[in-house]
Amino acid sequence: MTPLITLTTDFGEGSPYVAAMKGVILSINAAARIVDLSHAIPPQNIRAGALALADTVPWYPQGTIHVAVVDPGVGTARALIYAEIDEQRFVGPDNGLFSLLAREHRVAGVRTLTNREHWLTTVSNTFHGRDVMAPVAAHLSLGLDPALLGPPQPKLVEIEWPAPVAQGNVLRGEVIAIDSYGNLITNIHRADFNPPVQVRLLVDSTLIDAELVSTYGQRAPGVAVALVGSSGRLEIAVVQGNAAGQFKAGVGATVSVSG
Amino acid sequence: MTPLITLTTDFGEGSPYVAAMKGVILSINAAARIVDLSHAIPPQNIRAGALALADTVPWYPQGTIHVAVVDPGVGTARALIYAEIDEQRFVGPDNGLFSLLAREHRVAGVRTLTNREHWLTTVSNTFHGRDVMAPVAAHLSLGLDPALLGPPQPKLVEIEWPAPVAQGNVLRGEVIAIDSYGNLITNIHRADFNPPVQVRLLVDSTLIDAELVSTYGQRAPGVAVALVGSSGRLEIAVVQGNAAGQFKAGVGATVSVSG
Amino acid sequence: MTPLITLTTDFGEGSPYVAAMKGVILSINAAARIVDLSHAIPPQNIRAGALALADTVPWYPQGTIHVAVVDPGVGTARALIYAEIDEQRFVGPDNGLFSLLAREHRVAGVRTLTNREHWLTTVSNTFHGRDVMAPVAAHLSLGLDPALLGPPQPKLVEIEWPAPVAQGNVLRGEVIAIDSYGNLITNIHRADFNPPVQVRLLVDSTLIDAELVSTYGQRAPGVAVALVGSSGRLEIAVVQGNAAGQFKAGVGATVSVSG
Repeated sequence: MTPLITLTTDFGEGSPYVAAMKGVILSINAAARIVDLSHAIPPQNIRAGALALADTVPWYPQGTIHVAVVDPGVGTARALIYAEIDEQRFVGPDNGLFSLLAREHRVAGVRTLTNREHWLTTVSNTFHGRDVMAPVAAHLSLGLDPALLGPPQPKLVEIEWPAPVAQGNVLRGEVIAIDSYGNLITNIHRADFNPPVQVRLLVDSTLIDAELVSTYGQRAPGVAVALVGSSGRLEIAVVQGNAAGQFKAGVGATVSVSG
Repeated sequence: MTPLITLTTDFGEGSPYVAAMKGVILSINAAARIVDLSHAIPPQNIRAGALALADTVPWYPQGTIHVAVVDPGVGTARALIYAEIDEQRFVGPDNGLFSLLAREHRVAGVRTLTNREHWLTTVSNTFHGRDVMAPVAAHLSLGLDPALLGPPQPKLVEIEWPAPVAQGNVLRGEVIAIDSYGNLITNIHRADFNPPVQVRLLVDSTLIDAELVSTYGQRAPGVAVALVGSSGRLEIAVVQGNAAGQFKAGVGATVSVSG
Repeated sequence: MTPLITLTTDFGEGSPYVAAMKGVILSINAAARIVDLSHAIPPQNIRAGALALADTVPWYPQGTIHVAVVDPGVGTARALIYAEIDEQRFVGPDNGLFSLLAREHRVAGVRTLTNREHWLTTVSNTFHGRDVMAPVAAHLSLGLDPALLGPPQPKLVEIEWPAPVAQGNVLRGEVIAIDSYGNLITNIHRADFNPPVQVRLLVDSTLIDAELVSTYGQRAPGVAVALVGSSGRLEIAVVQGNAAGQFKAGVGATVSVSG
């Protein structure tokens, strides 16, 4: 069976740009099986794209081809790359989009995409997702040897990623994403602390206490809780409410764990 | 051919949580065929999820496996269930999500999901869609006997559903959903009244007359009309406009039919 | 392999109306392969639908069946049609939705859909996408001869499309779409002008200069640029910003090219 191709972009759900990429893939491999990871990455937010990939890719089968297009540098000197991470395959700009996955898993077979033979004949200046990455992924799904894509490249570009900071018995982290429920996802992992602890959210100069629980339904609607979410990250939620809206908290807000 | 698996959630379109569920399913059944019913159910709104399922499921083939995750009680005592309704199959929390379908169709084979053998090895406290429901659906699509999921359960949880109330020659119902056009969908069915009738929407203390027509294009742009929509429910619309926005009407607004 | 069926609607991403159409198609052709082109067409905006189709359809394989439902006239005298444009197949209302494609490619085999044999048994007044177009597309994907759909029709309905106007050495066009990055897409094509030129956006009585570049990354974040986008249309963007938001510019805003 032809391997899966997944698409992750900042084009927006329902974007014709996504549809164009799918048409290109299906014109090259009529049997292609395409899955949308997400097209709701905030525009040009490489870090948000890296986080979405890190949270979803590990659930996919070996050999899956993941195409990711969060590419503010399109048409400039940034490279496009092919890489193998944890037995899966990746095609995208070398701008840090894969660097969170790369920190947690083995990286191999990195290539710079230079061989135009597997691209569309005409390549636009602004849409390499359609003109380069989609055709490369389609040819890979048909069995193309990645060695034919271009020369080896020693490593991937990395981006700085905020790490929580320990000060005495307080660990200070930050909100790195907000999900569709308004839950505040932090950069503090399950392994970073030992319950019982006191968790606090700081927005402007207001401190909000969030009681550490194991699931939302353990407190009454409207109560602020902290819990280890499904990706192992500490998150702050309001039971049956929207923490981001209620506390006017965005990405970057401080979260502290003490005790 | 492997049966269809559909997904209905309140995760939001483009949510990485949806992508994780698809990865789990495709890792168990590489040939799985997945269709998104909707991921735009308002957060934790079981009733809206029940309505979306009732309006779409009947169009699907026999044997389809529908996974629905609107699950505010995740990780608490609420059960996860398997059920057969009208020759189709359902996996989800037993919180009323299937109760509108269950009122209109025959329910059979209800089982409580207890056999962890068909779940992921590690089950989080907050994402049973990924850790329990997705793998159960994938195994069912491979032919797993539902009897192996857990013990029979006599019936499904029901939720109260607002019914229209007759007072003399007036039938009083309410808006139960708003579609993407801003059309106000009510709980009054085609069978509940005999035209000609007068239809009125009440918002705060303002009464809006809506002329009963058979389709939108029968009146000029901007006119408020009432009609029986494609699911048999009375709805109020503004021709080429947005009734919800124009009348500031939300779910729960009163609609009366008289005559 | 069964031909692809694509769906383009103004139902909104996550709409149960889309899910109902997919169920109808899959109930007729269990092996149907469905791709979403877009469900984010603004409500009842035929021109926006026509533009999305023109920008995406050319990337799809020959024989693909495109179903498009932007249909404010549903249930009135407007016809539903089948047409072949550039070796691909189309099903939808004859309201101009295909007229931009038809201007750029050869049209053949136009038929009015009249033969109810290939529709659902019961046809609602308000949802012909589900009751007529979806089943017609599904039967076509199974090999139905289009001649059985209804009688030939000489041509498709056309809609007026704003063309840029030349006045001396100034070409005046307008914004016809805004993408999810806030880029302002105009009706001025690559072939309409010869660089170097001066590009200006006019919003209310404010003129904004946009420097012509070949890709976004050639200027610093925040700078207004003009470039030929991936569909050959001149567009105005703010590097790593949102031009529509920053300039409060919408569809219809004037863009001039001079020099």
